[in-house]
Amino acid sequence: MKLIRFQPYESIPKPGIQRPDGTRIDVSGFCADYDEFFFGSGGPTRLAAWLEEHGDHCPVVDPATPLAAPCGRPSKIVCVGMNYAAHAAETGAEPPTEPVIFMKATSAITGPYDDIVLPKDSTKTDWEVELAVVIGKRASYVTEAEAMDHVAGYVLHNDVSERAFQIERGGQWVKGKSADTFAPLGPFIATADEIEDPHDLRLWLKVNDELVQDSTTRDFIFNLPQCISYISRFMTLLPGDIISTGTPSGVGLGMKPNRYLKAGDTVELGIDGLGTSKQHVKAYGQQ
Amino acid sequence: MKLIRFQPYESIPKPGIQRPDGTRIDVSGFCADYDEFFFGSGGPTRLAAWLEEHGDHCPVVDPATPLAAPCGRPSKIVCVGMNYAAHAAETGAEPPTEPVIFMKATSAITGPYDDIVLPKDSTKTDWEVELAVVIGKRASYVTEAEAMDHVAGYVLHNDVSERAFQIERGGQWVKGKSADTFAPLGPFIATADEIEDPHDLRLWLKVNDELVQDSTTRDFIFNLPQCISYISRFMTLLPGDIISTGTPSGVGLGMKPNRYLKAGDTVELGIDGLGTSKQHVKAYGQQ
Repeated sequence: MKLIRFQPYESIPKPGIQRPDGTRIDVSGFCADYDEFFFGSGGPTRLAAWLEEHGDHCPVVDPATPLAAPCGRPSKIVCVGMNYAAHAAETGAEPPTEPVIFMKATSAITGPYDDIVLPKDSTKTDWEVELAVVIGKRASYVTEAEAMDHVAGYVLHNDVSERAFQIERGGQWVKGKSADTFAPLGPFIATADEIEDPHDLRLWLKVNDELVQDSTTRDFIFNLPQCISYISRFMTLLPGDIISTGTPSGVGLGMKPNRYLKAGDTVELGIDGLGTSKQHVKAYGQQ
Repeated sequence: MKLIRFQPYESIPKPGIQRPDGTRIDVSGFCADYDEFFFGSGGPTRLAAWLEEHGDHCPVVDPATPLAAPCGRPSKIVCVGMNYAAHAAETGAEPPTEPVIFMKATSAITGPYDDIVLPKDSTKTDWEVELAVVIGKRASYVTEAEAMDHVAGYVLHNDVSERAFQIERGGQWVKGKSADTFAPLGPFIATADEIEDPHDLRLWLKVNDELVQDSTTRDFIFNLPQCISYISRFMTLLPGDIISTGTPSGVGLGMKPNRYLKAGDTVELGIDGLGTSKQHVKAYGQQ
């Protein structure tokens, strides 16, 4: 299944399903949101069963209705840094010997076609296409062998990053990862059964139609079971939590000279099986 | 007002008030929780007005009922590092020229008298008494002059930290800050009107009755308006969010030789006007 959330005028986002033909239906008769309760209570399995009986009677969503991020606000977004060798090299870092992890404020989440707003005083806002995992079951000290049982699905993520804030402002990366609109998610969450091999997906990103990132998850330094098991030793992952698994080479920080986003740019990205998203870049305060 | 949450047997936590005589009343007739909606909708002011009429009829809470953390899960906990000069010196760091900030997973939150559970493989779990601020109003690019208008209240926080995970595991501090039980909060949130001068509060912490931290918020490197204004340039603070303002000197990492928590230890801490909390230290898996 492809889980979407859509946002009717003057409404909070509602849960829906994108059907194989691309049409979308409203499943708010089944649940209020795709949130911790949904994922933690076997929501995808229960929803699939419910759709067998009720799917044909669900309201069709007007295609003009904006898409929101496909999940309600998770308790946390945990990101893995430097998880592709070629990306570590382009940033001047050695490949890590164990996963580098950092957090991104959940207030940064935005819809897949919403604008990226450059923060005030930003000079180095960069792009990062990433495969993100949605946790389906509480994970604390899980082994690598058990880890994939804790995955509910996958989602396309642009881990937008302000490099001056991240690297030049003293200390921790969270400063450059957490501005509003810095986490476009979606268009949909593909439930785990939809993705045959998450370690063999092409992921790419274009800036103004120029292909700048083009890689594959075959090149992970730490694969998904390793990342999930590792993170679960340091914190408990809750249903609905998001793990973003790092970006491949081709970010602006790695270009010579460096190249960063400016108002008027367009970013488009995609991952096999997870659709594509597209964001226009705006200055802060720009209409 | 002093906002508490208490947890009756087999119930989710309920909101209450600690009265000046120390007795506690149940205000779940007014609201379901002290959460983003409560703080973002003028909850403390509305609750005070409601108590004028209904306070005498609220159920009294059995004093044996366990206290939970005094707030529902916030969207984020943002911590300020190295915010007391003497603490920066004891860890071997230069005082920062702008605030160091990092995040702590909200899944680490626990009640003020709950146990601290040492993570598996932990050898360097440390204590940190901190003044934490509860945000009352969305804050994005607020000036220092406006910042205190965004504060709903204050709460005592033990920013428990595993130093090996934080410092020796490659990269970002979040690894050592986010284990379950690493954020004891409370006993209560004091609403902002209760604290005459948050920049003149004694804060202290004892390990097994020995006073190891004893300082005052007069020694902040960055005061509250500076911290709030600064953080709001990098991310939007939402109602209910917690900013923990750093710890003074006297942590185990600063002792020669280093001294860390072990199973059986007791940590007790307090801040003027914010009460005291006490945690027993247990090994992982210990009953």
